[in-house]
Parts: sequence; structure tokens; C-alpha cells
Amino acid sequence: MHRTLSTLFLSAAAVLLPAALTRSVSAEDKPNFIVVFCDDLGYGDLSGFGHPTIATPHLDRLAAGGQKWTSFYAADNVCTPSRAGLLTGRLPLRSGMASDTKRVLFPDSAGGLPATEITIAESLKELGYATACVGKWHLGHLPEFLPTRHGFDSYYGIPYSNDMNRLDRETSQFALAEKESFAAYDVPLLRDEEEIERPVDQRTITRRYTEESVKKIREFKDGPFFLYLAHSLPHIPLFRSAAFKDRSPAGIYGDVVEEIDWSVGEIVASLEETGVAGRTLIVFTSDNGPWLTFDTHGGSAGLLRDGKGSTWEGGQRVPTVMSWPGKLPPGVVREMGSTLDLLPTFVTLAGGTPPQDRILDGHDLSPVLFGTGPSPRTEMYFYQGAQLYAVRKGPFKAHFTTYTSYVKQKPFPRDPPLLYHLGEDPSERFDIAAKHPDIVAELKSLAESHRKSIVPVEDQLAKVIGGE
Amino acid sequence: MHRTLSTLFLSAAAVLLPAALTRSVSAEDKPNFIVVFCDDLGYGDLSGFGHPTIATPHLDRLAAGGQKWTSFYAADNVCTPSRAGLLTGRLPLRSGMASDTKRVLFPDSAGGLPATEITIAESLKELGYATACVGKWHLGHLPEFLPTRHGFDSYYGIPYSNDMNRLDRETSQFALAEKESFAAYDVPLLRDEEEIERPVDQRTITRRYTEESVKKIREFKDGPFFLYLAHSLPHIPLFRSAAFKDRSPAGIYGDVVEEIDWSVGEIVASLEETGVAGRTLIVFTSDNGPWLTFDTHGGSAGLLRDGKGSTWEGGQRVPTVMSWPGKLPPGVVREMGSTLDLLPTFVTLAGGTPPQDRILDGHDLSPVLFGTGPSPRTEMYFYQGAQLYAVRKGPFKAHFTTYTSYVKQKPFPRDPPLLYHLGEDPSERFDIAAKHPDIVAELKSLAESHRKSIVPVEDQLAKVIGGE
Repeated sequence: MHRTLSTLFLSAAAVLLPAALTRSVSAEDKPNFIVVFCDDLGYGDLSGFGHPTIATPHLDRLAAGGQKWTSFYAADNVCTPSRAGLLTGRLPLRSGMASDTKRVLFPDSAGGLPATEITIAESLKELGYATACVGKWHLGHLPEFLPTRHGFDSYYGIPYSNDMNRLDRETSQFALAEKESFAAYDVPLLRDEEEIERPVDQRTITRRYTEESVKKIREFKDGPFFLYLAHSLPHIPLFRSAAFKDRSPAGIYGDVVEEIDWSVGEIVASLEETGVAGRTLIVFTSDNGPWLTFDTHGGSAGLLRDGKGSTWEGGQRVPTVMSWPGKLPPGVVREMGSTLDLLPTFVTLAGGTPPQDRILDGHDLSPVLFGTGPSPRTEMYFYQGAQLYAVRKGPFKAHFTTYTSYVKQKPFPRDPPLLYHLGEDPSERFDIAAKHPDIVAELKSLAESHRKSIVPVEDQLAKVIGGE
Repeated sequence: MHRTLSTLFLSAAAVLLPAALTRSVSAEDKPNFIVVFCDDLGYGDLSGFGHPTIATPHLDRLAAGGQKWTSFYAADNVCTPSRAGLLTGRLPLRSGMASDTKRVLFPDSAGGLPATEITIAESLKELGYATACVGKWHLGHLPEFLPTRHGFDSYYGIPYSNDMNRLDRETSQFALAEKESFAAYDVPLLRDEEEIERPVDQRTITRRYTEESVKKIREFKDGPFFLYLAHSLPHIPLFRSAAFKDRSPAGIYGDVVEEIDWSVGEIVASLEETGVAGRTLIVFTSDNGPWLTFDTHGGSAGLLRDGKGSTWEGGQRVPTVMSWPGKLPPGVVREMGSTLDLLPTFVTLAGGTPPQDRILDGHDLSPVLFGTGPSPRTEMYFYQGAQLYAVRKGPFKAHFTTYTSYVKQKPFPRDPPLLYHLGEDPSERFDIAAKHPDIVAELKSLAESHRKSIVPVEDQLAKVIGGE
């Protein structure tokens, strides 16, 4: 039924925009898309983004032959809303996936990504793509919300965060990771909609996601495909396979990131082996910043301020690498981009038209990808739950409310707002609001217009199993 | 006379070590050495070290084809002692170039690098090298201390920091930079030992250093040479030539670093054009961390703690790139190294023997350069003036005294010392001394042994013109 709905939307769009839809991209010209999405990987956690002790040679190579994006944003600063934003191209508040009741979905949640939302997978399926979801979902674990109900032909992964359903509450999560006590977390592994292992052995999870992804790439090699590989790490608790144990000078966090880097190498190798590397766009990024309160088990935002759970840059700016051999001019991209932009970018490259019947917050990044023009993304909106805390336009970012992540403090209203120039001051250290009243006024007015575009919808994060 | 002295030292070494000196490297096999030394460039200020808005494509390319060193230290955390350490391979305290009286030399200083010290230039001259010094010296501006008295065939540059002899004390240095008021700093430009311009027009200084360097490379192309190019920027006040004005989204600081990056491109191009790229080792690094108190006119230490003037990592760990096409296996080097190591490395590669009659603090880094073994540098000593504040051995760093740079506070003795694991915690956030009493004891004992190796010498920084 949901697929029918999505077909209807596309048909409606076709009526409105026949010219756009007749622009056909032949099956052979339809690029494959792979999104490798990490969990809590910080801006500073890759070698190419300045980490001194974590070795990421596969990502370094991917970036050297492709593009390193230095101003790329996750759709939100925590897990569930960030994923909703990526898959729908819409700010999570629009789908009820961001709220002030809870930040993310939990094992007792009854909500999830509504069927009325159109995901990248659904859009691409309509255009003839094979689709697979591997890894962490976190957009609803009840059957009606699973990847298989949102446009993915198959699913293999865990339905929510790897630290949920913790059984052993006596032991600290640090100690559990060191003991590799995966059994302390009653997290299921699903194949499509079926539970196949519980608790999942998290020590081999990155390896198994990778094997599944490589299998899918081989299976899909003849047609266009979309693979969404959402690693459940380096979210704490940290686990890695035997081959990566005690390998990194950066400790267990480094081991985990280095295994993800290995995974990227395997993906790239399988694309080369199957001869489809030249028609595959890979996007490697993260769902939000590092979880700084977990000491050496949390990552680093590099020179950015704060981390996960915050509207400072460290919360939402994520280390991003894109690659499409022979197509993307290699280099460092300093233009803005966001996971919100992936849906319109992919759908357009596949010859389709992004949904026209609803507000999309994403833009087609093709001009930046192919080096033909500036980024259509000139603004970014930073939410804490359902509240707009900050707005960026060009190099300027205004904070209307600030909050340091994961500390027991109240949000701090800022009037006048704080203003930073992210070009000259990427660490958000020097408030220049007093010097630029005009820019402050412009950003305030931008925030007001934006707020008006938000239509209240049902809060998916508030719904509890057995609840009202 | 100074050259005679240095000849005597080398002769003495020859008597002691005939076998070593008879190991001859033919003139053609003697590599050229270029050191590009920046002033106050922070660990996080290059694109490859994680800066999001400063574009350094030439250095990115140099690193991609060569080695990015992520754990490379300047010899000290401020200018004069750092430079003394680089050129002599000895901790600056051993030559009287670090002291508790002053941190650096000033225009009224009467001291400088003693003639009894042996510089890289002197060592290489003995081995048949042509030598040139271009840029900032800061090891004594009286004639007897100039580069031409320390083994350099020629000199073109400024004798001390670019913010010294400031005339306009009414205007802030920020404002002066924005107005490009180079005339507010009565800094001379020297050609060999002669003043040729005063005040030097700092707007064109990076370009002119580059032109001089390229000229020297062309002149030296047939024989082995050593070029020491010590940029006087991005030390504040910031200046750049017209071509780089308002070019970087990172503002004037970015413009300045981007002009230095351009300069690196010119150096590399001239090596290729003269056909000597394949026999030239380039080392690009910085004299200390970023001057954080100067807001957007100071750089960034990336994820490292604190900056210039501090014994935290941000003060002394510097962004370092080495390149020698066809010789160095490309990659990221996480082993330790220091500017202290350049003298023994260069002299050994040139077929010579480093001075044997004195304590050297440097090591021959060849095993790391050529990928044949681990770094001989396993320890690093961090001084504040004449006081040992911290010691690193392997991944562990113990702080016996801490001090936040450029704030009005007293040094804070730490007993027990603070202990950090720089592999897992490069930002020095989590003190683990209590968990590792054995390592604390080992580092304490290392510090004690090291202190015993220091022999008191005349304090060069205390000497004032017309003084006692």
C-alpha cells in the first residue's frame, strides 16, 4: 500500500512536470549509489580530517581520487532524526521524527518513519533500482516501519542503537567494551523483517555488514542499485572483530574506525572487481558528531566546537568523502552540503524528479559534484528536538539558543543571537554579532520565514508501545 | 674564524671516527635538502591536517606523493629556541638559546647563536653543499650571529620577528594588518649582512622569499644544496601580496597560508623544471603552534590542546610534510620526529657524521623516511624557557608543570604529574596518572636523567645591547 502511495505521488508529479520526467536517463547511464553512514563518527576522526593516530588509508585514497567535503552537515545532531532527514530529504521535524519529547526512538517506542514519507529507496525503486539496506535502521522497529516497508528490497541489520536494551547495568559501558560483553545488550539482528540473532554478536557486526554489502554489490552488478550501509559503530559500546583488536595506537575507538575504513576498502574493491566502479557514486559520512562524554570511547570533532547532541558545528558537521571515478573532479570541496541533499541529488542523477507535493529541504548537489557551479545549499538550519537553535547562511551562523551537549544545564536563550563567521572562525570562538547587526537581522528574518514553513505533524518519538 | 672552528670540530670527529667518514657518498648521490619553515602555523591550519576553509592544494599534493607526519615536534614552543634547535640538532638550552629571562631575542638583544654551535648549514658545507638562508632568522641580528656567520653562503630576509620594532602603538595589530600598515613595523630586510630595505614591505615578503628561493634552486641545480626557507608568516601582523588579498574564505589568515602554499608550489615546480626533484628532500613544517590569543589572526591547533608558548601538544606539535619523489614511500607517518632530528638525518644522508664532540638531541630519521624501521625518536622533552615541564615516551606524556599560554597565570606544579596517552587521547583531556603509577615513575626518572645532561652555559637571551 505504501508503494502505491509513493507511485501516486510520482504520478502526480508527472502530471505537473512532464518535461522533467521525459528527460530520460537510459538504464546503463543510471549511476549506482552507495551511502556509507557511520554512527557518531566525529569530524576529526579520519586521517584526512586531521586525526593524528587513527589510520584510514582506504578513505584517504577514496578522498584523493574523489572529493573531501569539509562543510557537509548531517540533517540533525542525533541518530533518529538525522537518519529520517537523510532518507527523506526533509528536515525530520516535517515527518514527526524530531520532537521535544524524546531525541530518538527507543526499544519501547511505537512510532517510526510514517508510510507517507518518500525515501531515497522508494524514489529510486520507481526508477528501476535494486535497493538494499544494511546496518542500523533506527527509524522504527515495529514491522510497519522497517526498511522493507520503506523501499528497500532487503534488510540486514539492527533496528536501533547498539547500546539499547542493556541488560548488565552494573558494569560500565567502558568495561563492557573492554570485556567485549556484547551479550550485555539485548539487541536483535534482523534479516528483512525476521529476527535471526539475539543478542547480536557485535564483535563481528562491521565485518558481517561488509560481507552482506559486497554480496549485494555482486548481485546487483548488472542494474542500477542503491546500497545504504549504515554502520552501527563507532557508537558506544565499541566492538571490533579479532583482526582489528589492539591494532590502532588510538585504542579501541581507533580499532573500530580502522575496521570501518577496511570495510570501505572492501566495498571499493568489490566495485572494481565487478566492473561498476566507474558508474557508482559513493558517499561516506556520519549521522552526527562524536559522543564527547565517553572519554576515549568517544571520537573527536577536530577543531569544531562540541559534539553529538549539540547545534554547535561539532554536533552536525560530519567528515564526508564522495567518489565517482572519472566523473567527479577530485579535490577538497568547501561548499555546503547536507545529507538532506542526497535524495534530490540521487533522484535527479537517476533521471527522475524529486517529490513535488511536499516541502523538500534538500538540493541537487550536481553543480558541486561535477564542478560546474556553486552549491545550491546556501543555508542550513540547526534544530535541537523541535526547536530551531541556529541558522547558517553563507559563512555566517547565528545561534538563537545555545546548549552544551550532554550536560545537565538548561538551554541558554541568546538575544541578541551569537554570530560567527565559519570561514574565519570554524571553531565558533569569536562572537561578532555586535559588528554585524545587518547580518543578525537577516538571519533572524530567515529563521522566522523558515519556522513558518513547519506544519505540525504527529510526534513519532512520543509514541510508546502499549501507550495511549 | 667560525668556519675554521667548525672545521676543527669535524676534523676531531674524523680522528675519532675514520670508518664513518670514509663511508663516502658521491657528489651525485648527495641529496639536496630544502626546509620550508613557517612561523606560528598551527597543527590544524592545513587542509590535510583538517582545516575546513584554508585551501592548501600544493601541500596536499606534496603530502599525497610524500609523507604526512602527524607526530612531529618543533624543538621548542616559541620562535628563537625552536630555530636554534632545528639548526643545531640540540635542545636550545644547551646553546644558551632558551632561558628563563626572556623567551626570544628582541631588537635590543646582544646575544645570538654562539659561534661554537655547529649548524646544519656548516655541517653540509663541509660536505660540499651550497647553502642559502631565506626568510626570518631570529638567532641574533648583530653581524656575528647572522646566517652568513653560521654556514650559509647567502642570506635574504628579516633578522627577527615581523611584529618587532612596532612604531604605531596606538593602533591594534589587527587593524594594522587590515590597513596593510607594514610601515608601522620598523623591521629591516637584509641581503647577506647589509640592510637593503627598512621598513620592509611585508605585503610582498612571501612572494619575494619565494622568488629568491627559486633563484637559488636554479643557481644550485648542478651541485648538492641546502636551502633553509623560513617564512616570517603567518606570525602576526598578517600581510599578503595583492594576488592573495581576500581570496580565502578563512580571511586574512587563510590568505597568508594560501600564499605560503603557493610558494611551496613554486619551489616544487622549480625543482621539476631544473630536473632535481628526484634528488631533493623537502621538509615543510612550523616553528611552534598557533598564536591563539590573536583571535582570527591566529591559527588553529586542530584537535590539539593549547598553542604557541605552551608545553601542551598544540604548542609544539606541528603540521609536517616530507617529500622526496621516488625515495620516500608515500603515506601517513605516525612515528615521532622533531626538527631536532633534521641535522643528524641530513648529515648522514649526505655521507657525513653528525658532530661527535657534544650532546646531540636529534636522531637520524632515515628508517622512518625509507620505511625500513621504527623511529629512533622514542622520547620528547618539552621545555618552558629553561624548565622541563613535560616528557613524552612512546604514547605517554607526563606533565610536571602546566601553564596555559599567554594568560596571566603562574605555572602550576603537578605532583603527581598529569599523564596522558597521546594515541588514544591526542587532545590531552583524560589524566590517567592514577591508573599507571609505573609509567609515571618511569617518566619521572627519565626527566631526572635528562636534567643531568644539561650543562649550564651563557644565557644568550638575557644579553642586551649596551647592557652589562
